[in-house]
Amino acid sequence: MRIGIVGLGLIGGSLGLALRALGHQVYGIARHPDTCVAAVTLGAVDSAASDLASLAPVDMVMVCTPIAAIAPTVQALVPHLSPETVVTDVGSVKGDLVQAATAHWPWFVGAHPMAGKAEAGLAAAAANLFMDRAYVITPLPETPPAAIARVQDLAQSLRAKVLTCSPSDHDCAVAWISHLPVMVSSSLIQACLQESDKTVLKLAQTLSSSGFASTSRVGGGNPELGLMMARYNREALLRSLQGYQTQLAAITHLVETEQWSALAATLTASQQARPQFL
Amino acid sequence: MRIGIVGLGLIGGSLGLALRALGHQVYGIARHPDTCVAAVTLGAVDSAASDLASLAPVDMVMVCTPIAAIAPTVQALVPHLSPETVVTDVGSVKGDLVQAATAHWPWFVGAHPMAGKAEAGLAAAAANLFMDRAYVITPLPETPPAAIARVQDLAQSLRAKVLTCSPSDHDCAVAWISHLPVMVSSSLIQACLQESDKTVLKLAQTLSSSGFASTSRVGGGNPELGLMMARYNREALLRSLQGYQTQLAAITHLVETEQWSALAATLTASQQARPQFL
Repeated sequence: MRIGIVGLGLIGGSLGLALRALGHQVYGIARHPDTCVAAVTLGAVDSAASDLASLAPVDMVMVCTPIAAIAPTVQALVPHLSPETVVTDVGSVKGDLVQAATAHWPWFVGAHPMAGKAEAGLAAAAANLFMDRAYVITPLPETPPAAIARVQDLAQSLRAKVLTCSPSDHDCAVAWISHLPVMVSSSLIQACLQESDKTVLKLAQTLSSSGFASTSRVGGGNPELGLMMARYNREALLRSLQGYQTQLAAITHLVETEQWSALAATLTASQQARPQFL
Repeated sequence: MRIGIVGLGLIGGSLGLALRALGHQVYGIARHPDTCVAAVTLGAVDSAASDLASLAPVDMVMVCTPIAAIAPTVQALVPHLSPETVVTDVGSVKGDLVQAATAHWPWFVGAHPMAGKAEAGLAAAAANLFMDRAYVITPLPETPPAAIARVQDLAQSLRAKVLTCSPSDHDCAVAWISHLPVMVSSSLIQACLQESDKTVLKLAQTLSSSGFASTSRVGGGNPELGLMMARYNREALLRSLQGYQTQLAAITHLVETEQWSALAATLTASQQARPQFL
């Protein structure tokens, strides 16, 4: 298959490496000529250019740009696509984006390969990035089944775990397990910093160990990622934050009123439930 | 030195192994005769008994029982101690306990070696458990300096990082970095479980990965430990929970009102502050 990849960062570059290894011919698109050269040198693409017109021959386009650029990129692709060319993306929030992109191109199939790395950029790309990781496909009721099947087949060929659900179910689920934890974890760091007794703050910094390190990890991560989650998944995140505040208030109430057996029951329920998320 | 250890679990057993390796003579106390035999067999003690009277010859007693038993144990030790025998403990909360124990025995020196393991019990004991870990000593203004110095010297001989602070500063600091994270993290698991759309809940469980695993880790831990923290450090924990709720509400407000540059600033501040806690 001839596959176009727009955006040659970690995800786009890794898709290129993996798809070329599977025998596909990969056409890359990057804004900067330097990135085009680097992607060819790395073997992530067969050829690369900055002009979307170079994608005219492809059977499928994977849009791997930052989330804000996905729908505009789909719109800009339209003049260059043959009928029934499948366009898919890798955005980590799906709701409005899938609607907007589908309005531009009915053969758009929203998707979210849930793979990543601490490092960003093309240099960190790896052909096995998607192996055994979830690859969520989020079609609309009107998305052509043939288009969905082509993205499912491609994801399966990457040896990813392919799931299909609605864009809104995807967004609610990732709000719980990915976007809410960032806000919860960042609030922990912020709360500690508000300690007005500097001796206690210094002591807390000295004594903190693995428990604090784990709980604060994602809250101390890349601020751009956290901001993107909040901006593009605002509604689902607010719903999760509200649910979280209710549970935190409930636990606080048990401590305040010294309801120790009820607190023990809650902590036991948490211990028992956690493995279902692992 | 002749050293008594009351309570031969993970911490008591590890202290015994470490102190015997340093040439001290270790007298163990355990309620169950089986534990006494096991501790001698393991080499954690030179001798062991269930009667506190057997500690009459020792120069120092380390009380390594569960927290609720520490002050009563100090009281029960009093008839068997020579004047200027130092009594210390390993409890993870210090405030009321140090007051109560000191009332029973003025040569009591509160302490908290911040070492642990996933496994509990004597079988998991290790001589190097305290090496490079914080060993917090929490005297009162009236604690005899000679008693403090003897506990400091002992902790240093274990190659621990010895810190000295007031019981209340200790309790406030561990509320921030140890006890608050458990409640924050458990609330995350509880909040996810409240999702009423079972398709979304199932999807969240399927999609959750390292971010959720880290943030939920301590909240899904041993419920007895969490309960103990809340029970014995209730006041400092409530103070931390209140500070946390304020920060969580502030972040939620930024998302609600779409103050993206302010949210970016908060997330950036969290990213910059976290290394000070590692």
